[in-house]
Amino acid sequence: MRIPLDRDSKTPLYRQIEASFRKAIESGSLPPQTRLPASRRLASDLGVSRITVEEAYAELVADGLIASRPGSGTFTLPPCSLWPRRGTDETSWPLWQEHLRLRKELFERGKTEPAAVRRLIPLGTGLVDSSLFPIGDFRKALARAMRRDGAGAFDYSEESGYEPLRRTIVHVLASQGLQTDARNVLITAGSQQSLALVAQLLLSPGDTVVVESPTYSVALELFRAFRVQCVGVPTDEDGMQVDALEKVLQQRHPRLIYTMPNFQNPSGVCLSAPRRRDLILLADRYNAPILEDDFVGDLRYEGRAQPALKTLDPGGRVVYMSGFSKMLMPGLRIGFLVAEGPVYDCLVSIKRVNDLASPNLVQRALDLYVSVGRYQAHLRRCCRVFRERRDAMLEAIARRLPADCRLTRPRGGLFVWLRLPKSLSATSLLPVAHKEGVTFAPGPAFFPAREEGEPFIRLNFAAFSPEVIEEGIARLGRAMRRACGAAHGAK
Amino acid sequence: MRIPLDRDSKTPLYRQIEASFRKAIESGSLPPQTRLPASRRLASDLGVSRITVEEAYAELVADGLIASRPGSGTFTLPPCSLWPRRGTDETSWPLWQEHLRLRKELFERGKTEPAAVRRLIPLGTGLVDSSLFPIGDFRKALARAMRRDGAGAFDYSEESGYEPLRRTIVHVLASQGLQTDARNVLITAGSQQSLALVAQLLLSPGDTVVVESPTYSVALELFRAFRVQCVGVPTDEDGMQVDALEKVLQQRHPRLIYTMPNFQNPSGVCLSAPRRRDLILLADRYNAPILEDDFVGDLRYEGRAQPALKTLDPGGRVVYMSGFSKMLMPGLRIGFLVAEGPVYDCLVSIKRVNDLASPNLVQRALDLYVSVGRYQAHLRRCCRVFRERRDAMLEAIARRLPADCRLTRPRGGLFVWLRLPKSLSATSLLPVAHKEGVTFAPGPAFFPAREEGEPFIRLNFAAFSPEVIEEGIARLGRAMRRACGAAHGAK
Repeated sequence: MRIPLDRDSKTPLYRQIEASFRKAIESGSLPPQTRLPASRRLASDLGVSRITVEEAYAELVADGLIASRPGSGTFTLPPCSLWPRRGTDETSWPLWQEHLRLRKELFERGKTEPAAVRRLIPLGTGLVDSSLFPIGDFRKALARAMRRDGAGAFDYSEESGYEPLRRTIVHVLASQGLQTDARNVLITAGSQQSLALVAQLLLSPGDTVVVESPTYSVALELFRAFRVQCVGVPTDEDGMQVDALEKVLQQRHPRLIYTMPNFQNPSGVCLSAPRRRDLILLADRYNAPILEDDFVGDLRYEGRAQPALKTLDPGGRVVYMSGFSKMLMPGLRIGFLVAEGPVYDCLVSIKRVNDLASPNLVQRALDLYVSVGRYQAHLRRCCRVFRERRDAMLEAIARRLPADCRLTRPRGGLFVWLRLPKSLSATSLLPVAHKEGVTFAPGPAFFPAREEGEPFIRLNFAAFSPEVIEEGIARLGRAMRRACGAAHGAK
Repeated sequence: MRIPLDRDSKTPLYRQIEASFRKAIESGSLPPQTRLPASRRLASDLGVSRITVEEAYAELVADGLIASRPGSGTFTLPPCSLWPRRGTDETSWPLWQEHLRLRKELFERGKTEPAAVRRLIPLGTGLVDSSLFPIGDFRKALARAMRRDGAGAFDYSEESGYEPLRRTIVHVLASQGLQTDARNVLITAGSQQSLALVAQLLLSPGDTVVVESPTYSVALELFRAFRVQCVGVPTDEDGMQVDALEKVLQQRHPRLIYTMPNFQNPSGVCLSAPRRRDLILLADRYNAPILEDDFVGDLRYEGRAQPALKTLDPGGRVVYMSGFSKMLMPGLRIGFLVAEGPVYDCLVSIKRVNDLASPNLVQRALDLYVSVGRYQAHLRRCCRVFRERRDAMLEAIARRLPADCRLTRPRGGLFVWLRLPKSLSATSLLPVAHKEGVTFAPGPAFFPAREEGEPFIRLNFAAFSPEVIEEGIARLGRAMRRACGAAHGAK
């Protein structure tokens, strides 16, 4: 135990020791029934006499803060609840802390939506239904990894990630039409870290990054936190408007193009094949790296599969990122990047200085779980379930929401992106919906220029059963009608 | 499956499909015995006729790349090994990739030392002995967390970390004399991420950071990767020379002071009590945040315990970091920060954009494992074992190394920091030692000005049994004598 003692102080040492324990007990940081060190031991730790420690303990006993039990030691008692806890608000912060208050970009952020409180239906969630996770199989994989690898499962993994898992990822990608090599795969702590590593490597404060408008909200938070300018390129039913992109490339010289070509978050649209080729050509012409976020590229429910941009890459133009979070357990925090050339080596270095490597045990268990066949089977099951849920949501929307709601039928992914009736805004609708027992992801979070998002909301169909979807959309319909007032007669 | 098809190309579609599979099989990314999609399914995925797919498959069958097994499907065969694999070295990289080659700071980095190859004794390792890890107990904690929490164990945790674990950390810290609150604790992916988050928040390219000279090598890598200037303050047997620090604060206006006051890595020294108070006062006077890295503060084998700088903090001056990696399993990648005020909120935001949150299951299992009592018991056991190993190493050094090796007897921690005889340098000694079957951590990696490290090497006593230490130091002695030539007659 280490207690700060001031040997030059007028306060006797035993009083200083007593005060330290008193503070810990009253603040609750030493909970009741905590055993205190024996006086002999503490005296030696602090370099004081044993009598000094015993005097301090005697004061605490007298004040009812600790008690000794013969034969088993000295223990803390519950603190007297009449003592006020000192708030930290009164502290005067150093100047550098006051400056941090001005870093507004760090405080403007979405809140992770709490899980269903008071039977709220959180249609705004970005997650999928955890009841679909193959938890039993994964638990077996964990146990097998520990049995097989012993202490090795708890050591650091290679910096680029556990090699067998990288090979497994290569096989999964090959079965999806993307060919790469384990030497070009970097395991990350989920897609968010993939984004963060690329941003740390390629962007400096003041740089410009091109994003789709709308785009993934936490990517916008990330770029803002790194003090990077986000320029949005509008999207339509064929994805990013690539001709608008060219103007941005000419005028703004962005250092990165961040895109989700498949079932984009939040809009659900896919980039068309001709635009994919144009995007690669433009990025090459203007010397801008592409970061392809393929977060749900294989959750397709109808229509033709589009190749990843990465498969069109003539070499080293595209950094590809994906992960397992949407299909498997998001709390595992495992994703990956695919890249070639100097950028790959630099990303490994950046990963190393960020956290040395991702947790080894989880990587080993995931590798045992994800064989191509098992993963594909789980994927097929997810597709079947999510297609049904999408249909349920589209059908409920048609029946339950005002007729002037507009949407593009998503052919895959997790989300319906809804344009509200003209008289409504996402921000004003949210509290009304909350009262009705349903929430959604409001549009502004997804736009570089937040106000452009007011006409939109994002709904997740993949996380709920058709029955819950039906009820959630019914509540949303009631909320919309209440918010619109009597103007809308839609049923 | 997604294969890029060019419908305007003169190459027929079946040839394009065939070429894509051929490339995947020959490159090894589709391994032998992979089942190909049924032709009907692939045709629908790609929006081509079934006959087109069948033609492509027929070509691959004819070339011996795939084979069909009646009743079970079409499978890949081992690729013909006569086909050369196309290297990626010939690729012409885009210009932005060529620029990355110039980011030298990202390529100058230490290599994680491989585990004992060819009976090498890697005395340079930064890890402790994995045979001490309580793996059985931790496995039980994992199983219990999954049983108790079901799918909840696999969801995202709170951004600041799993709340019960933060409370447990508060109790552990209180039992060590540091009082805080769970609202001031942030769970990170190990100490490396703690460092990275603080650096991302407080430092921009071109800023100056104060470090001890020598200091933790991967911290130097991190600051260099972030293009931050490192200014070293010399250390002696009482730790950082705080009067030298004042000059640096006046002249360089650093944005951060990074310090390890207890059993410093690599030197093993502790900052004296008067210097601790001076450091806090100086940091306050010059408005510089202190990052206190207390990586092994409780691995003390003798002498008086020093309070953490954080306990002397009048409020919001010190960001404290520690973790479990050294005492428990490093591959778990769980560490924590303690901070108050705006800096805490900003660090949570930076953590969120970096990876959303640390893996939930691991946090829950760790919380179940680390009760104050169990952790303290494990700590006591580690201290007993490591003290014995330290003594073994000091004794072996006295007997086996040239008499003009100099060292400060470490009173805790993991390392002996050795000054080599004048005629030797770490860099030239390393290959000789390697040939003798022992390695060490060479000094230059630990100094902001690398060349200042040539007289030093770091040896780890905590990772090896006394027998292995004896043998390792014997080999090191032989290497030194060989490197010195006949000049040294020391036995």
